[in-house]
Amino acid sequence: MTLHLYNTATRNISEFKPLQPGKVGIYLCGATVQAPPHIGHIRSGVNFDILRRWLMATGFDVTFIRNVTDIDDKILHKAVHEEIPWWAVAMKYERAFTDAYKALNVLPPTYEPRATGHITQMIELMKTLIEKGHAYAPGNGDVYLEVRSLKSYLTLSNQKIDDLQSAGDSEDTFKKDPRDFALWKAAKPGDPSWPTPWGPGRPGWHLECSAMAQAYLGETFDIHGGGLDLIFPHHENEIAQSEAAGYGFAKVWMHNAWVTTAGEKMSKSLGNSLQVHELTKRVRGIELRWYLGSAHYRSMLEFSFEALEESAVAFRRIEAFLDRAIELLGKTPEGIIASGFADAMNDDLAVPAALAFISETVKNGNNAISAQDMNSLSLAVSQVRGSLNILGCDPRDEAFSNSATSNTDAIDGLISLALQQREAARARKDFAASDAIRDQIAALGIVIEDTPQGPRWTVSK
Amino acid sequence: MTLHLYNTATRNISEFKPLQPGKVGIYLCGATVQAPPHIGHIRSGVNFDILRRWLMATGFDVTFIRNVTDIDDKILHKAVHEEIPWWAVAMKYERAFTDAYKALNVLPPTYEPRATGHITQMIELMKTLIEKGHAYAPGNGDVYLEVRSLKSYLTLSNQKIDDLQSAGDSEDTFKKDPRDFALWKAAKPGDPSWPTPWGPGRPGWHLECSAMAQAYLGETFDIHGGGLDLIFPHHENEIAQSEAAGYGFAKVWMHNAWVTTAGEKMSKSLGNSLQVHELTKRVRGIELRWYLGSAHYRSMLEFSFEALEESAVAFRRIEAFLDRAIELLGKTPEGIIASGFADAMNDDLAVPAALAFISETVKNGNNAISAQDMNSLSLAVSQVRGSLNILGCDPRDEAFSNSATSNTDAIDGLISLALQQREAARARKDFAASDAIRDQIAALGIVIEDTPQGPRWTVSK
Repeated sequence: MTLHLYNTATRNISEFKPLQPGKVGIYLCGATVQAPPHIGHIRSGVNFDILRRWLMATGFDVTFIRNVTDIDDKILHKAVHEEIPWWAVAMKYERAFTDAYKALNVLPPTYEPRATGHITQMIELMKTLIEKGHAYAPGNGDVYLEVRSLKSYLTLSNQKIDDLQSAGDSEDTFKKDPRDFALWKAAKPGDPSWPTPWGPGRPGWHLECSAMAQAYLGETFDIHGGGLDLIFPHHENEIAQSEAAGYGFAKVWMHNAWVTTAGEKMSKSLGNSLQVHELTKRVRGIELRWYLGSAHYRSMLEFSFEALEESAVAFRRIEAFLDRAIELLGKTPEGIIASGFADAMNDDLAVPAALAFISETVKNGNNAISAQDMNSLSLAVSQVRGSLNILGCDPRDEAFSNSATSNTDAIDGLISLALQQREAARARKDFAASDAIRDQIAALGIVIEDTPQGPRWTVSK
Repeated sequence: MTLHLYNTATRNISEFKPLQPGKVGIYLCGATVQAPPHIGHIRSGVNFDILRRWLMATGFDVTFIRNVTDIDDKILHKAVHEEIPWWAVAMKYERAFTDAYKALNVLPPTYEPRATGHITQMIELMKTLIEKGHAYAPGNGDVYLEVRSLKSYLTLSNQKIDDLQSAGDSEDTFKKDPRDFALWKAAKPGDPSWPTPWGPGRPGWHLECSAMAQAYLGETFDIHGGGLDLIFPHHENEIAQSEAAGYGFAKVWMHNAWVTTAGEKMSKSLGNSLQVHELTKRVRGIELRWYLGSAHYRSMLEFSFEALEESAVAFRRIEAFLDRAIELLGKTPEGIIASGFADAMNDDLAVPAALAFISETVKNGNNAISAQDMNSLSLAVSQVRGSLNILGCDPRDEAFSNSATSNTDAIDGLISLALQQREAARARKDFAASDAIRDQIAALGIVIEDTPQGPRWTVSK
């Protein structure tokens, strides 16, 4: 079975065929950098990172572009509120997103273009659209796309243009049709602006992505991704702009579902406690990643702290298996992709089925430990590691092996030394000494759990 | 004493007077992102970070801009060599620089503009220069600055224009004078380009910085920094462009000296082993930072591995003092700025004198320990922490307190437990047990050093 993906544009799952053999170009709509990232934002990054890793593992050379929208009304409002320039707001939150992606082991994009860095490309695109009769500059400094001039419109969201309300991006009366949308917005007093042949102004959100996708992936490329909520109007308007300019644009459209709370798209009020840097105080980055990646990307993920904790515990069981197995094997087998895992991933990235495969493999591995079957154990470790790697959750991935690791080894050894001393004290019936050792360990916040595979420790916060 | 700085433009040290009370704007020439950063590149970041921290500590609101030069012949060559697009090269090394700055606790800039993101601003600047009669577009797609049209030129490097050779940035014969330099370079076939009124092309290096400094700091700003080697031609040409456009440009020019090897600016061949990510395998980031910041910014820093190690050992002594003192005090006194330290920093950032102050304070602190004078000890800790913080080297700065820290505390406690057990074994004359404990600790790569302040440990790689 080869990779099959659901295409929002065709509303069915079909075989993925790259435009060029062995190469894939992906454009993912990134963040509007106006607040710290919460898991609703980052889920998209994790879902498309799994796609990217799967494509890489199956031999594709992937060019992955994820933009930064660094000019927007929300950023301008935040600048007023924080009393710093709008570009300092954008930089601050761009960094917060970078940190969050890194904490969750999301591979950095091949390129991460900023919208404000592509004004010349946007001007060129608008010139083309005006020349082709699909856009107009009514003289007030705005530039609009004329939706009635298009051969097709709203095919992604399957709406009829006549059912559409006003595009609502301007209160003025310069539009030919209320459904026309702004490619470019005339400068308002005090707002940042860039010069154009139609006067100073700033880009409309939709135009940015059409220009940046073309700049880095060309006029026609393989996959365009984003969250469900971007289908309309953002992605419809990207398609309108790019197709009107004569580009093939994206062949496959993929949309990840939301993180929900009480069945709704994450609310702003709850948003603060669901920021990545808050949640990574509660669970490790690798555990949060595991949780966010665990649902199918097209399924809503209903968040609860209980579900997050349970997911983290389940992940730690897999980790404990790997630790124990690697200790027994005396080596760390490299990851391999098993067909059971591959079948799941090729089926529109069916992560839940892939997790069932991992779970089964861990079970087989534990049976191999009982049976002292080192060959089977080694195979199980390879399959688990190979699978976890695609999910971005291999604890032995070098992304997770920073300086903390050598300390972890040191703690392992020291705890084992302390436990030996406790045993020795007991053996010589010096119970005062053995109790003192136990208490000293507890006082350090080190929790030792006796497991069938021997004692396991964690350092509590 | 208030802050006095050496100004390359006036060739003397004078009182620093900000353009606006309480605010300072700094533009630092950042990296051309075409290779991993070595300490020659990063020293500049560290030196100007110390300036920034000092200004912040003395009450200034600092806007710090450090650019990324992301289009350049070297980047284009590297792209051919690495067989990836030029923008993927730029992104990769921009990230490598970000990582290196972070590893050395350099505060992230208020904004980090990329040259290619400021084409519209460069075009506007060229239009202004042409209108004012200081630049010309000879029709081949290049745009040149006409150096003979300037009121002054080469004042920073104190050269005479008649002594100057050709600017050498073009082999063509379109220049009015061989010393004219390119603001903009016509597109060569296959190279990236951006549209302009004079044809497609790409920016000259000098133009980028004039345009970006103005975009974020305004036409006139306080401080422009960079390495010594940038004085000519880069900074001279920035001044030529910006002043010809009618801007006041930078009031103070500051230049850091090089990291040298055998008295020469760091060679490329040695460069690999002096990359930040290589050296931070040998010493910790905080120790490398300490070393790079330890010389006066206007003095050459002659690199040797021995000097680096010695510097790291000296730093660890200060750390050991802080650890011991904080343990004795039972609390962590906040940092304060002592007048001895302030006097040194206000004297053109005289870090060597500041280090002498720290050294003296540590000595006083150790005397206070002997005398059990906790008030004096607390003061010494505050002064040392306050000083280290300005140098970006406070081990208790939250930049260094990541998850590794709680593990460090755990290791501290476990080693102390193990040493107690060893003492207990000796006390009961069980020398086999006490030797076994010592050997187990050694086998973990943990080196324990007996110091007057008690045992200190390090985990070797």
